[in-house]
Amino acid sequence: MNRAIPGKRIELGVCYYPEQWDESLWVDDYKRMAAMGFSYVRIGEFAWSIFEPLQGVFSFDLFDRAISLAEKCGLKVIMSTPTATPPAWLTHNHPEVLNVSKDGTTHHHGLRGHYNYNSSTYREFTKIIVEKLTKHYANHSAICGLQIGNEFNCESNVYYSDADHDAFREWAKQKYGTLDQLNDAWGTVFWNQTYSDWEQVFLPRVTPADSDNPHHALDEKRFVSDSTIRYAKLQADIIREHAPNHWVTTNGKFGHLNHHQLTNNLLDFYAYDSYPNFGFVFSEGEDDPLFDRKWSWNLSTVRDISSQFAIFEQQSGPGGWVNRLEQPTPKPGQIKLWTYQSIAHGADMVLYFRLRTAIKGTEMYWHGLNNYDNKPNRRLKEAAKIGEELKRVGENLFGTDYLAEAAILHDYDNEWDGELDTWHGPFTGKSIRSWFKAFQYQHIPVDCFTLDDDTTLDQLMTYKVLVYPHAAIVTPKRAKLLEQFSEQGGTLILGSRSGYKNEYGHAYMKSFPGLLSDLAGVEVNDFTRINKVDDTPYIEWGEHTVKAETFNEVLTILSEKTTVLATYQNSYYANEPALVRTSFGKGTCYYYGGVFNDQLADLLLTDTGLKTRSELTLPKTIELAIRASKDKEYFFLLNYSGEEQTITLNEPMNELLSDVTFQSACSIEPYGVMILTKV
Amino acid sequence: MNRAIPGKRIELGVCYYPEQWDESLWVDDYKRMAAMGFSYVRIGEFAWSIFEPLQGVFSFDLFDRAISLAEKCGLKVIMSTPTATPPAWLTHNHPEVLNVSKDGTTHHHGLRGHYNYNSSTYREFTKIIVEKLTKHYANHSAICGLQIGNEFNCESNVYYSDADHDAFREWAKQKYGTLDQLNDAWGTVFWNQTYSDWEQVFLPRVTPADSDNPHHALDEKRFVSDSTIRYAKLQADIIREHAPNHWVTTNGKFGHLNHHQLTNNLLDFYAYDSYPNFGFVFSEGEDDPLFDRKWSWNLSTVRDISSQFAIFEQQSGPGGWVNRLEQPTPKPGQIKLWTYQSIAHGADMVLYFRLRTAIKGTEMYWHGLNNYDNKPNRRLKEAAKIGEELKRVGENLFGTDYLAEAAILHDYDNEWDGELDTWHGPFTGKSIRSWFKAFQYQHIPVDCFTLDDDTTLDQLMTYKVLVYPHAAIVTPKRAKLLEQFSEQGGTLILGSRSGYKNEYGHAYMKSFPGLLSDLAGVEVNDFTRINKVDDTPYIEWGEHTVKAETFNEVLTILSEKTTVLATYQNSYYANEPALVRTSFGKGTCYYYGGVFNDQLADLLLTDTGLKTRSELTLPKTIELAIRASKDKEYFFLLNYSGEEQTITLNEPMNELLSDVTFQSACSIEPYGVMILTKV
Amino acid sequence: MNRAIPGKRIELGVCYYPEQWDESLWVDDYKRMAAMGFSYVRIGEFAWSIFEPLQGVFSFDLFDRAISLAEKCGLKVIMSTPTATPPAWLTHNHPEVLNVSKDGTTHHHGLRGHYNYNSSTYREFTKIIVEKLTKHYANHSAICGLQIGNEFNCESNVYYSDADHDAFREWAKQKYGTLDQLNDAWGTVFWNQTYSDWEQVFLPRVTPADSDNPHHALDEKRFVSDSTIRYAKLQADIIREHAPNHWVTTNGKFGHLNHHQLTNNLLDFYAYDSYPNFGFVFSEGEDDPLFDRKWSWNLSTVRDISSQFAIFEQQSGPGGWVNRLEQPTPKPGQIKLWTYQSIAHGADMVLYFRLRTAIKGTEMYWHGLNNYDNKPNRRLKEAAKIGEELKRVGENLFGTDYLAEAAILHDYDNEWDGELDTWHGPFTGKSIRSWFKAFQYQHIPVDCFTLDDDTTLDQLMTYKVLVYPHAAIVTPKRAKLLEQFSEQGGTLILGSRSGYKNEYGHAYMKSFPGLLSDLAGVEVNDFTRINKVDDTPYIEWGEHTVKAETFNEVLTILSEKTTVLATYQNSYYANEPALVRTSFGKGTCYYYGGVFNDQLADLLLTDTGLKTRSELTLPKTIELAIRASKDKEYFFLLNYSGEEQTITLNEPMNELLSDVTFQSACSIEPYGVMILTKV
Repeated sequence: MNRAIPGKRIELGVCYYPEQWDESLWVDDYKRMAAMGFSYVRIGEFAWSIFEPLQGVFSFDLFDRAISLAEKCGLKVIMSTPTATPPAWLTHNHPEVLNVSKDGTTHHHGLRGHYNYNSSTYREFTKIIVEKLTKHYANHSAICGLQIGNEFNCESNVYYSDADHDAFREWAKQKYGTLDQLNDAWGTVFWNQTYSDWEQVFLPRVTPADSDNPHHALDEKRFVSDSTIRYAKLQADIIREHAPNHWVTTNGKFGHLNHHQLTNNLLDFYAYDSYPNFGFVFSEGEDDPLFDRKWSWNLSTVRDISSQFAIFEQQSGPGGWVNRLEQPTPKPGQIKLWTYQSIAHGADMVLYFRLRTAIKGTEMYWHGLNNYDNKPNRRLKEAAKIGEELKRVGENLFGTDYLAEAAILHDYDNEWDGELDTWHGPFTGKSIRSWFKAFQYQHIPVDCFTLDDDTTLDQLMTYKVLVYPHAAIVTPKRAKLLEQFSEQGGTLILGSRSGYKNEYGHAYMKSFPGLLSDLAGVEVNDFTRINKVDDTPYIEWGEHTVKAETFNEVLTILSEKTTVLATYQNSYYANEPALVRTSFGKGTCYYYGGVFNDQLADLLLTDTGLKTRSELTLPKTIELAIRASKDKEYFFLLNYSGEEQTITLNEPMNELLSDVTFQSACSIEPYGVMILTKV
Repeated sequence: MNRAIPGKRIELGVCYYPEQWDESLWVDDYKRMAAMGFSYVRIGEFAWSIFEPLQGVFSFDLFDRAISLAEKCGLKVIMSTPTATPPAWLTHNHPEVLNVSKDGTTHHHGLRGHYNYNSSTYREFTKIIVEKLTKHYANHSAICGLQIGNEFNCESNVYYSDADHDAFREWAKQKYGTLDQLNDAWGTVFWNQTYSDWEQVFLPRVTPADSDNPHHALDEKRFVSDSTIRYAKLQADIIREHAPNHWVTTNGKFGHLNHHQLTNNLLDFYAYDSYPNFGFVFSEGEDDPLFDRKWSWNLSTVRDISSQFAIFEQQSGPGGWVNRLEQPTPKPGQIKLWTYQSIAHGADMVLYFRLRTAIKGTEMYWHGLNNYDNKPNRRLKEAAKIGEELKRVGENLFGTDYLAEAAILHDYDNEWDGELDTWHGPFTGKSIRSWFKAFQYQHIPVDCFTLDDDTTLDQLMTYKVLVYPHAAIVTPKRAKLLEQFSEQGGTLILGSRSGYKNEYGHAYMKSFPGLLSDLAGVEVNDFTRINKVDDTPYIEWGEHTVKAETFNEVLTILSEKTTVLATYQNSYYANEPALVRTSFGKGTCYYYGGVFNDQLADLLLTDTGLKTRSELTLPKTIELAIRASKDKEYFFLLNYSGEEQTITLNEPMNELLSDVTFQSACSIEPYGVMILTKV
Repeated sequence: MNRAIPGKRIELGVCYYPEQWDESLWVDDYKRMAAMGFSYVRIGEFAWSIFEPLQGVFSFDLFDRAISLAEKCGLKVIMSTPTATPPAWLTHNHPEVLNVSKDGTTHHHGLRGHYNYNSSTYREFTKIIVEKLTKHYANHSAICGLQIGNEFNCESNVYYSDADHDAFREWAKQKYGTLDQLNDAWGTVFWNQTYSDWEQVFLPRVTPADSDNPHHALDEKRFVSDSTIRYAKLQADIIREHAPNHWVTTNGKFGHLNHHQLTNNLLDFYAYDSYPNFGFVFSEGEDDPLFDRKWSWNLSTVRDISSQFAIFEQQSGPGGWVNRLEQPTPKPGQIKLWTYQSIAHGADMVLYFRLRTAIKGTEMYWHGLNNYDNKPNRRLKEAAKIGEELKRVGENLFGTDYLAEAAILHDYDNEWDGELDTWHGPFTGKSIRSWFKAFQYQHIPVDCFTLDDDTTLDQLMTYKVLVYPHAAIVTPKRAKLLEQFSEQGGTLILGSRSGYKNEYGHAYMKSFPGLLSDLAGVEVNDFTRINKVDDTPYIEWGEHTVKAETFNEVLTILSEKTTVLATYQNSYYANEPALVRTSFGKGTCYYYGGVFNDQLADLLLTDTGLKTRSELTLPKTIELAIRASKDKEYFFLLNYSGEEQTITLNEPMNELLSDVTFQSACSIEPYGVMILTKV
């Protein structure tokens, strides 16, 4: 997963849509970008009708001119394949390429992402346009790399066209070989769902109530991921063959896609589209929401895929579509804050979405740096300032690694199973939010780490502490690996409903926490959801009283090495163990029979002994991130508040962007950024 | 409606799914059941694919082995026909058997209840499998009875397949004979809906707004009920023919089904599936909800169908499907409480759902007595204790009758009409909740009694008090019967919007309360809904002030024998009559121009003179139910609270389960049960 | 737009449905109407099956008898064409006439409005029935006029049948001529939506997310309006040809219809259906809702179409369908209040909906004056009183004009664009509510005035003050006209997001407020939505502090003649201009960078110098409306509260209904009406 971004320093750029403007406007736009210290222009992702206006008729003139002009202005060009939006002639003449909703409604031309990955027609037309495009631009000196499609599985991440049903049937045949094995894996003996002929096998369809077979539903997500990767591979293979000197990537992060597999198999690095402003419009019903700071978790999951990565769309204006998800304008400082947030977490290239604001179409309110008038405004000036800064310091930071001693574990099986299963999925969401907040507020950098059956002990041992909140699905191999981690001295933290399901999502015929019972030192003989009617139980941990809402497991101690840290109160299982710590080999395993909340995550993190860096004393509103080269550490301080904050340096440090040396107390402006290195 | 349950004492059992487990596990499970004092195993209801794995290929081996083993372990077996879940080969090869939603979306294979009752194909396949199964098990010594299908109209109680539209057209032809009569009954002159050819007649279909013709919609429910019964009869007839020595029943209680007609025509007794834990997750927006205690009303409606009945699924664990309706775990004592709640209300057989918890499928969180590990836990032990108790006392209680001096009237016409019609349906729901609460809190046992045109005066005269809150539809025959009831000395309590519709749901051209005006002693010349904007009116009844929210009728007194009990205040009809009492023959009729609430139902119940039994003084949280044989009364005391409660015996009584004699004040444990008899 | 209502005085009438009752009931109903002083009966709008029971079989007997009897009783008859509800034989035999929802679901027979305007079959059947009906009644002495259809675009105002898609394609061809022009107008270059063949063009269809192309969506509404008018013209032309002596109108006001164009091209006057009681059930989430008084705004928009107009359905009872939108009963006085509310705003004819209440069908709870029993009740008596009054005073008021010195501007482009576009549509709704409230509470009569490219300066100059809150779409012609209005001395008030879009809904490449920048004296270089997270900004205007929620534009002053009235506070643009006033020629333009609220509209209205009439001093709950002939003014005072109110006359005035002369303080009863003239 070590991924290098091309180049020698962190460079900036923009998304640009030459086809949307009068050609006479291009040159001033390009010159402006260059003057701002920008290097990259990304183009082409929605331009199939420009490249192939009629079936079999190809035209690259407009983009040839746009690219040449960009080159003349000193810019490098990232070209996208245009497959996220098939042309009207294609969807009209070949409706089998369209996606279909579960209830059979066809998604028509008029938005984007309305095709399916499995139609042989669509795959054929894709092949033709990607081959033409790649060959045309294979040796163009201005082109530095290619983006495959755009934001796979955005707008829709489920597919029910006939082609998808058919492909799913083939996929299931490949996976299970026999119907007996499939019937067993999907538990079809329940509710008489047994299949007696392959022809009876479909993706989940509409039934009298909205409760898909959970094992079938889990395989559906695996199939969608595989279909997406297979489709991306079709394109990647063509590009690798015809344009072997260009790097290849794709952008965005949406559901039902194993990004690790995609990236490892097909890409040079991964690119993310970062819109932290959504943090102010999406409410997750938390008491203490992180808003834009939550994007640091999103960026951590991207870093998990690609140790260094690019941002292909960095929000730079107010956003939202014509009729939904309306967002405010970034406040003075926020564009800079969000840019360095990306860089702090591993971005080595950042493109802003977008230079100009579209004057037509569904995204006319997804503003770019400039407004409709294209006059230089405060947002553009803010970005120009960042361009200037990165010219000075972008080389120092480039290629450095994010430093973390802890990780929150993730895996695709539980992510996908938990989408349907409300007995663990929502618990994981809630617990991760609390844990991430605890790491943030204690200023302890943390990774996301994705576990699978290929994960090695060495990989895990780079961390001191792993948090794996409610991993329902745990295979024997993964259970073993987690045991080895603790055996070798690691600290593992588990929550309720861990380890009770196998890879198909069947429950083991075991007491909770199933395969993790030995490691956790406990088993569960009673448990309950907490309903709205009862008073909320709480736990007592030393002098601390912590609410135990949502779900409670009553723990039975199995191991002599297990210490009860906290017991339940205010329920029929009062005084029974709720939270335990078990010595396991040289290490430790914590097990909590509930769902983590902010207070408990905070207390537990303290209990692990992990500490923030001694060089700095920081207020809660500041994020600390550290990128390091072999011999130097860069301390990123990011102020998410609209108030000036005071920080304390416990030794003199140099601030990279201003080249000023600070010591003891100093202030950081509202939405301000500092990058400190030891003197 | 007197229905006897087979046997000599109240016996317990479980639902069991041998097809879901390794055969090696069966014997220990059966032995465990027997050791717990259980008698019954219900099996087979979702096993069509086991019985008929391919069309025309039959196999009863697995169940033969399962049944023999059960018998060897001393258990009696209830076998179900498997028609609630057609096999994949059937639905795939014959899609016309599938149910379809109103908007035309087909319900596919993958859940349950996805077939329609009217497809001739489905009826044919049903015939074959039921005949095969019945013949195979007709003389099996272990089989004691058969269950037809499972939970008719669960998951869906509307049907719009082509077969249903066609059958509805035939049904309407049978009912109305001519189109003129149909047009008149459905009021098609309004909005130009007149039909000029039978081919134009369909079940209600999608229209520009969600407002079906109300008379058409009422007939739709009658048709669904008739279709369901016709389908059940197809099975019942086969069983009666080939297995005349087995009793026949079915289970559950869902919408659009006249359970009285079903039971009287086809069944030996009715079986209910009781899940009181839903009371903690469904919110009905009440200030003072009954939670699980509300199930006593549900059980009263079952007793109305079948004086004694069975519980085929008694909740015994936490519940909910993978993605919906999640429920907490029964607290210590609640399984016992709910079991005796069923018995108190007339259950003479109780099967727990289920012994083991499914490890696969949509119901893997509908826990049984045991968890996935199948280790004996506190829930299993609680059930075993009940098994032991009923071995001792189950014979005493068996066959006794529930004693009630009052009934809340119900009828199918108003139930079905009120589903669409928000001018009376929701009023009835609200009023019944308040009335049932009043009866519960005053410890006066009450029945549900279903009125139809065959009801006799003798049946009504078994009650002193009848409450019929908002019966919009009242036929002349029913109006006459209610008059006779009062004439003969009965007390009848009516609410607003009574008596104004005929059997088709047309308004009579009369002042409210239409056909009940003479009896009620009033007519209504002004009335209004209460909107959110105005202050809520209230009524003054002596020293009591009671809110009159939702709806108000201003009453005009017609009879000299009518006394105004309360007048409206706080509205333009201030000081006008709201609540009256009329002497009618030897009896009394109360009429209230509003919708009943908790306070008013409580006051009115007191006013009727009905009283709780003098032997006991009970706190509000305790339910009193009485079952009686010819010479003995059993006082069931059920404590729904998690606190110990104090009760007072006004004479010495013996507690049946403990065989201890109590007198004066004594305590009942949290969720505790006592069954008292006079010494 | 000067429209005269036929007759010499304001007359009353009712909607009547002879086909719904036994013929023997007609005569008493008619006599009752006549006795109440009523003149009109409207009939026939849902009677196609009576007129044409089978295809090609016509029968007018029933209505002939009903009309003759009406005439004998001294009533005039308004006959409707019955096309709002096609007969079952038509929809069953010709399903292509049915409307279809966007997702392809056909709307079937059973409600109303389930046809489409563009089916050639439906147009053909319409032609036949309208021709038959018109010819039959062309010279009937009792018939005074015809109503075309009923409530166009009620129940549904979108259409997606095949006929609609085809007609839309033709409409687009007519409008744009070439695909290039269409592609440009719809901005199809965005997201690769470019059409290369006319066959690819459809009305908006289902896509993966609910975000239609906004320019396409705007044209959809224009197309629906054109289709509706084309369909109405089909009928109007037949009537004009065969019954040239009857006046022609239609009734109701629903979406996606340019009522001005419809009325100007086809009708003699417009008729509205007024149901102020909806004001008590629809909540618009305001702190200070107007409830039924809001209907005065609705009536102002009707007056904008037709200077005098008819009310064809004036609410006279409790309302709502069987299952939705339930409303209370009008309180004593409200029927009178609402009748005079209609008259005050320009109604010269008022028909009550309806005499009797339907005893069958979906509208059995849309009560008429009488209830099911048809006994005279307080509502009927109230209407009879109005009948008596208008016999006395109806001639005086008839044909007088509503007097207003101010208007709130409206245009169809922004109305339709703002339905989808949440960046201006909801702002307009909010601002108009506040402005209308300010005019109401300051007792300054106000018009609605619809602007289009044919509007003349003379029309605008009849007003001193125009409020045009957030007109996003402003064409060069309209911008010029607004400039001329101010130049000539008018006062114009604009809000944020004005003037930035062209007629297709594309943004101009200009700073806000686009084409209105010169007039407003400002441009906008920064702006933002206000999210829920931030503290709400406010503005300071002199000593007043006013919240500036929802949206803020930071104004840059361009003109020397611009005065800053208020600045923002509590945000990063604190102290920047928020509200300015610019001298423009002889007049004035106000520009506010936010969305108007109640407080600000009140302050601004005061600032314009407009004042209420000096003759009266009125409390807030009273509406003042003035109708005037050449030599006399009628001051309508309408009391919307349930409390008696005190008003002060600053000179003696005569009250028309009572013929009493009042001076100084006098009282107006709850829901009371006074019509004052100077002595």
